[in-house]
Amino acid sequence: MSKEKPSLPKGTRDFSPEVVGKRNYIFNTIKRTFRKFGFQPLETPTMENLSVLTGKYGDEGDQLIFKILNSGDYLAKTTVADYELGSKHLLRKISEKALRYDLTVPFARYVVMNRNEITFPFKRYQIQPVWRADRPQRGRYREFYQCDADVVGTKSLLCEAEIVLMIDEVFTSLGITDFTIKINHRKILEGIAEIIGQKGREVDFYVAIDKLDKIGVEGVKKELLTKGIPAEEVAKLHTLLSYTDFGIETINAIPEIIKNQFDNQNTQIGHLEIDKVRNYVETINRVALKNVKIDPTLARGLSYYTGCIFEVKVNNVQMGSISGGGRYDNLTGMFGLPNVSGVGISFGVDRIYDVLEELQLFPESVQTSTQVLLTNFDSLSEAYALPILQQLRAAGIATELYPDQVKLAKQMTYADQKKIPYVLLIGSEEITSGQLKFKNMRTGEQESLPLAEIIKRLAL
Amino acid sequence: MSKEKPSLPKGTRDFSPEVVGKRNYIFNTIKRTFRKFGFQPLETPTMENLSVLTGKYGDEGDQLIFKILNSGDYLAKTTVADYELGSKHLLRKISEKALRYDLTVPFARYVVMNRNEITFPFKRYQIQPVWRADRPQRGRYREFYQCDADVVGTKSLLCEAEIVLMIDEVFTSLGITDFTIKINHRKILEGIAEIIGQKGREVDFYVAIDKLDKIGVEGVKKELLTKGIPAEEVAKLHTLLSYTDFGIETINAIPEIIKNQFDNQNTQIGHLEIDKVRNYVETINRVALKNVKIDPTLARGLSYYTGCIFEVKVNNVQMGSISGGGRYDNLTGMFGLPNVSGVGISFGVDRIYDVLEELQLFPESVQTSTQVLLTNFDSLSEAYALPILQQLRAAGIATELYPDQVKLAKQMTYADQKKIPYVLLIGSEEITSGQLKFKNMRTGEQESLPLAEIIKRLAL
Repeated sequence: MSKEKPSLPKGTRDFSPEVVGKRNYIFNTIKRTFRKFGFQPLETPTMENLSVLTGKYGDEGDQLIFKILNSGDYLAKTTVADYELGSKHLLRKISEKALRYDLTVPFARYVVMNRNEITFPFKRYQIQPVWRADRPQRGRYREFYQCDADVVGTKSLLCEAEIVLMIDEVFTSLGITDFTIKINHRKILEGIAEIIGQKGREVDFYVAIDKLDKIGVEGVKKELLTKGIPAEEVAKLHTLLSYTDFGIETINAIPEIIKNQFDNQNTQIGHLEIDKVRNYVETINRVALKNVKIDPTLARGLSYYTGCIFEVKVNNVQMGSISGGGRYDNLTGMFGLPNVSGVGISFGVDRIYDVLEELQLFPESVQTSTQVLLTNFDSLSEAYALPILQQLRAAGIATELYPDQVKLAKQMTYADQKKIPYVLLIGSEEITSGQLKFKNMRTGEQESLPLAEIIKRLAL
Repeated sequence: MSKEKPSLPKGTRDFSPEVVGKRNYIFNTIKRTFRKFGFQPLETPTMENLSVLTGKYGDEGDQLIFKILNSGDYLAKTTVADYELGSKHLLRKISEKALRYDLTVPFARYVVMNRNEITFPFKRYQIQPVWRADRPQRGRYREFYQCDADVVGTKSLLCEAEIVLMIDEVFTSLGITDFTIKINHRKILEGIAEIIGQKGREVDFYVAIDKLDKIGVEGVKKELLTKGIPAEEVAKLHTLLSYTDFGIETINAIPEIIKNQFDNQNTQIGHLEIDKVRNYVETINRVALKNVKIDPTLARGLSYYTGCIFEVKVNNVQMGSISGGGRYDNLTGMFGLPNVSGVGISFGVDRIYDVLEELQLFPESVQTSTQVLLTNFDSLSEAYALPILQQLRAAGIATELYPDQVKLAKQMTYADQKKIPYVLLIGSEEITSGQLKFKNMRTGEQESLPLAEIIKRLAL
C-alpha cells in the first residue's frame, strides 16, 4: 500500500459532524414542510444511462456531465481509428453511464418508466446530490445537493399557491423573515417579446433579461441590440427594465406599466393566472402574501418553463437566489410522454446554509449529539459507571463513557470539543454517597445529585 | 431532444415513495442507536481521487471500482502509443477520480487529513451509498448503502462491548428477535494458524475458513491442501471445523475444544479479550448477551482486522450476514498515519430490508405520509376547504386538497392508492352545517364532525 498524502478532488467537500448537523437541520425543515403538503420522497440512482442525460441540458450542459468509464477492458470494442477520431467520438464507445446532473430529468424518466403504477397527480420530493464538472469557485461545487418538490399530472393553480406557501413555511421555520418571493409568468414574457417583434424568438429575450441583475439596464439593451433586435423595439423596454419599484409592488397591484404598455392576450393570461394564485394564497393563509412580489423582469434561465415562475431572494444579504421553480407543460415529452403538466420548486441548500451562518440563525441544539459524558477514573469507577450508562441510554439520553482511564483534563477537553453539554463525574466519594457530580459545561455549574434526578432533568 | 425509451443502468434501482419510507425507517433506527451511543455523522464525497482508492481493495477490488472520465477533452494529453498500450495504461491518463467503493477508506483518508482538528477518540457514523462494478444478481446491486459506525483512537474493549450493545439495540428495535451475534478474535485464528504451521501465512487459512458455510468441512480442507498445507496439519482442524455446536455455545463457555487443542499465547490473548468484552456487556446490559455466541471459525474476509470480529445472522431466514465488523490496528497506516487503533460495525440495509419484508416487521405507519385528503367538488367547496387545509397543516397534520374538481371516485382512488388514512368530504350540506364528513379509509367508517374535533383526533 502506497503512503501518498491523501487529498480531495477539487470542488468536493467532506462534511464534518458539526456541518452535517447543521445541514440536516435544513434538510429536515424542508422535508417536514414537503410532507405536510402531501409530497412523498423519491430516490433515483446516482448513475443514469448517458442516453437519458445527453441532449437535455444543451451543449454546454452536456460538457459538464461527469461520465463513467465502462468497467473491465473498456477499450476492447475500439480501434485506433476510434481513438484518432477524438474524445467526443471515442466517448460513445467507452462510456455508457454518467452521474446525475440534476433531479428533474431523472424524475421525468421515473414518471415515464412508471406511468402505469403512479397515481396522478403525483407529488414527489427528492433530496439528493448532483454532479457538474463546472469550474469550482466560492459557493460553487462539483457535488452539491438539490431539494426538489414537484407535482405532475394537474394544471391546477392551487399547486402554484402551495409552492408559495411551502417557500414561506420553509424560510419562516428557519428563522429567515426578510425575504422576497418573486413571481412572474412565462406568458407575460412571451407577450412582451411579441410586442417587441420577437414572437417565436423569445429565447434571446429571456437570456438577456435574465442578466438584468448582473449587467444592468444598459447591458440588457446592448445585448438585445447585438442579437439583432431593432433599436426602436429595444427602446420600448426601457421603462420596464428600469422600473426598480417592481420589487416593492405587492402581488395585489399588478404593475400598471405592464397593463398600459404591454397589453395583449399573452400578458393577460399571465396576469390572470398570477391573480388566481394570489387569490388561493390569500384564502389559505393571508400572511404568506406579505413577502410575495410580482417582477415582470424575472425570466429564469431554464427554457422548459411555460407558466408561473418563482425565485426567492434573502434581502440585505449578498447572495443570489436561494430557491426557484415554475410550471412546465411538457417535461416528460423528452421521453415520449407528452402533455404531463407539472410545477416544481427547488431549494439551494448550500446558499441557505451560508445565509443561516451569516445571520447566525442556526439553533445551538443542532450542534450537539451526545448529552452526557461519564468520566472514567479507574476500574472501580468504570464498573460503577457501566449500569449508569445503560440507565441513561434506556431513558433515551445520548450518553458516552470515556473509554480510557486517562487524566481528567483530557476527558473534559473531549467533552468540551465535542460540545457535550453535561459531564457526570464519578469518583470514590460519589460511589459511597450515590450522589453524582453533575456538571453543566456551559455554565460551569456543578451539583451533587442522585441518578434518578439527573435522568429526570435530562429527559425533559 | 430524442425520444428514446428510457431505462436504468443495470444493478441500480429507483426507490419509490413506499420503499423510501421503509428504508428510512431502517436508517432512522440505526441512526438513533448510533447517536445514543455518542457517534456523530460524517459525510464524504461520492468521488475520491483514484490514488486514494487504488491498491486498498486488492487487485479484484481495483477492477470493481467505477472510474470517472476526466472532463473536457480527456484525450488531449494522450498519444496513439498510450492507446496501444491498452486499457490499464490509458486509464492513468484519462481518469483521475472514481466512485467511493466503501466507507472505510474515505473515513481513513478523512482522519488523516483532519488529524489535527479531530478530538480522539473519534466516534463517527456514516450512512452513504457505495458503488461496485460487480455482476448484478439477486440481492447484489452496483449501488447500495453502507451504514458504518467506527471509533478510532482507543484500544478500550468497552468499544467492542458497545458494538455488541448497538447491534442488539438496532435489531431489537426493528422487531427482529431471533438473531445471533457471532464473535471471534483474529488472535484466536492466528493462534490456530500457528498450530497448523501457517505462522506468517494466515491469509490462506482465513480465506479458506471464511467459506465454511458455503463449501463445508471437506471443501475447506481441500482448499487448504491445495494451498500446500500438509495433510496431517489440515487434519488437526477437523474437529474444529465440524463442531457445529459452536453456534449453540454461549459466549460464557469458550469452547473447550479451543482450550484443549489450540492452546497457545495467541489464542489465550483472543480468549481473554473476548472475555473482557463479555464482562462489559454483562455489566452494562445483561440481556444483550442472550444472542451472543462465540464462533472460532468466523474469519471475515477483509484482511485489515486484527482483534475482535463480529458477524450477525438472522436465524430461520435464508440470508447471509446482515451486519459485521471488527477491530483494526492500522487502518490509517495506508495514508502514513500509523498506530491509530479502531473498531467498527457495518449494517447491511438491503438485507435487513428483505428480512423485515419476509418477517412482515415493517410497521404500517411507515407507509403513509399524507394524513388527510380534502375532496374537491366544486368552486364553492374548494373555497370552503382552503382555510381548513391551512388549519389542519398548522396543527402539524399532513394534509392535501385534491387539486382538481373531478369525479369523487377518482379522488377516493387517489386517497386509496396513496394510502391516505382519512378523507374529509365537503359538500354543500357540510358547508351549511359545519359538520364535515370524516371518513376512515381503512374501516370505511364515516362520521359527521366539526373541524375542531377532527383536529383533536388527528393530532393525537
